Amino acid sequence: MKIGILGYGNLGRGVEKAVNANPDQELVAVFTRRDPEGVKINTPSAKVLNASELEKMQDEIDVLVICGGSATDLPEMTPKYAAKYNVIDSFDTHARIPEHFANVDAAAKAAGKIGVISGGWDPGMFSVNRLYSHSILPDGKDYTFWGRGVSQGHSDAIRRIEGVLDARQYTVPVPAALESVRKGENPELTTRQKHTRECFVVAAEGADKAKIEQEIKTMPNYFADYDTTVTFISQEELDKNHKGLPHGGSVIYSGRTGDKKHVIEYSLKLDSNPEFTGSVLAALARAAYRLNKEGQTGARTMFDIAPAYLSPLSGDEIRAHFL
Amino acid sequence: MKIGILGYGNLGRGVEKAVNANPDQELVAVFTRRDPEGVKINTPSAKVLNASELEKMQDEIDVLVICGGSATDLPEMTPKYAAKYNVIDSFDTHARIPEHFANVDAAAKAAGKIGVISGGWDPGMFSVNRLYSHSILPDGKDYTFWGRGVSQGHSDAIRRIEGVLDARQYTVPVPAALESVRKGENPELTTRQKHTRECFVVAAEGADKAKIEQEIKTMPNYFADYDTTVTFISQEELDKNHKGLPHGGSVIYSGRTGDKKHVIEYSLKLDSNPEFTGSVLAALARAAYRLNKEGQTGARTMFDIAPAYLSPLSGDEIRAHFL
Repeated sequence: MKIGILGYGNLGRGVEKAVNANPDQELVAVFTRRDPEGVKINTPSAKVLNASELEKMQDEIDVLVICGGSATDLPEMTPKYAAKYNVIDSFDTHARIPEHFANVDAAAKAAGKIGVISGGWDPGMFSVNRLYSHSILPDGKDYTFWGRGVSQGHSDAIRRIEGVLDARQYTVPVPAALESVRKGENPELTTRQKHTRECFVVAAEGADKAKIEQEIKTMPNYFADYDTTVTFISQEELDKNHKGLPHGGSVIYSGRTGDKKHVIEYSLKLDSNPEFTGSVLAALARAAYRLNKEGQTGARTMFDIAPAYLSPLSGDEIRAHFL
Repeated sequence: MKIGILGYGNLGRGVEKAVNANPDQELVAVFTRRDPEGVKINTPSAKVLNASELEKMQDEIDVLVICGGSATDLPEMTPKYAAKYNVIDSFDTHARIPEHFANVDAAAKAAGKIGVISGGWDPGMFSVNRLYSHSILPDGKDYTFWGRGVSQGHSDAIRRIEGVLDARQYTVPVPAALESVRKGENPELTTRQKHTRECFVVAAEGADKAKIEQEIKTMPNYFADYDTTVTFISQEELDKNHKGLPHGGSVIYSGRTGDKKHVIEYSLKLDSNPEFTGSVLAALARAAYRLNKEGQTGARTMFDIAPAYLSPLSGDEIRAHFL
């Protein structure tokens, strides 16, 4: 199947790597809203084209993986391109999912295409695990812990503070909370009891570090509700030790059948958040292609897609290897 | 939806408990090959009937959950009843799955019914996790560890030894192996390096304990390939400390995107193996009912069923709660 990628940031590069690792997929082109001349990709056989070319490439692209931001890009882009292509996105603005799903559904149905939204690991694989657990054990409670991993949104928030040159923020689950949940104790946990936030900050020469630290720790929504540590380091140290984008976390479900306890845990330890997310999106591109070949149309999430559609193997093969 | 259960051992009782915890399901009857008079169930509103009644209850049962053994019961029963009902089983004889799938598929298609085979946790949820992981990260390797938990097959094997009155066998993962796999080290592990076996044995008075221990430890297939410990205890102690059927385990997938490592783990800690397995089968009964209502027919495994079908909630609700 022939794949296009729209947007070439960290996630777009992750999808590119994943598509190139899948023998049944071929990257045809990366589409960008920037000047294509300035975008260098890692796939010699693929083109770099301006996004406007997508107006007329329906014969050359089976599935378009849209790698934009959830705040402003995807609400506009995914319905727009679902009207021409099978599309995949990783939309993660929870409150706007009903609206986004409805918009993509209408566009995809009218065009006879499939639009898979909110793919990745959270939303994505974590969501699927929450759903399976609740469906199997209706009497129970799910807990999601993120990290240890880099939050790009929180890192960006620190960078916007005056006197900050660079920053990396790690989200870290509180070990005691994890342990209690894993034991099936069903604790009630506040935001502060679930995660801590570790900030590594490069300050400009002469900047007021005490003021920066105070500003971080009291920032509403981002840090004020957490136990936050701030460590000032040099740019060299940040570049050396904090350049990766590791992430992960756990969905833990603590359920019961009468007096019997059952604990289900799905956990991820990822060296690269965008490369893993990109790998999920590439598998979903395969699913979208196959669903559409069967004549299915409209919006889907991972909830609506049988696991077998993500695999390149036949039903006989997956039953032989994985059952 | 109206549920029937065929077979009332540990698993049948687990399904009964699960069905009674699902407000959208009603247990209509338990069917047994024994004398129904001698079978006492935990659902006052349900009947106990002889299995022969299944010849004529198509109007009263939407889904029949078949709780028989994989060795001889299910290969015969599941196709037989798929010719009359939507059916669910937990068939786990790996080598015979292609044949079983084909038999159930033919019977279910001819009858316009759905037959879900090999439901539970392994095969079942563990299988689904192996498939998702391989589909997302094609460059990787899966490891399955079972336990700590009671193996009923191994416990039975010990009980057949002369001089043994009762026994419980626990399968236990080797901590060093688990740790290495969780670190993404991709070790090659022999059978002995993955699991140990702990046996608690009640010997008859005057029995030759040394001989029993030797016989257990050298039993081919069951124990000879493992580091096995044998502890003789009294019947009272066995009844007090080893009467439960806890189980669980982990599917760990160690994958890569180029130079980046990613570790995915799905793990279960279950107070009751049959009650958890029964809960999976009850959720699959819901899925089978809904698939069949849509006009789908034939054999399925959990690979072929979108997660949403297992949930009693609507698409809007699951997107709102779990995505």
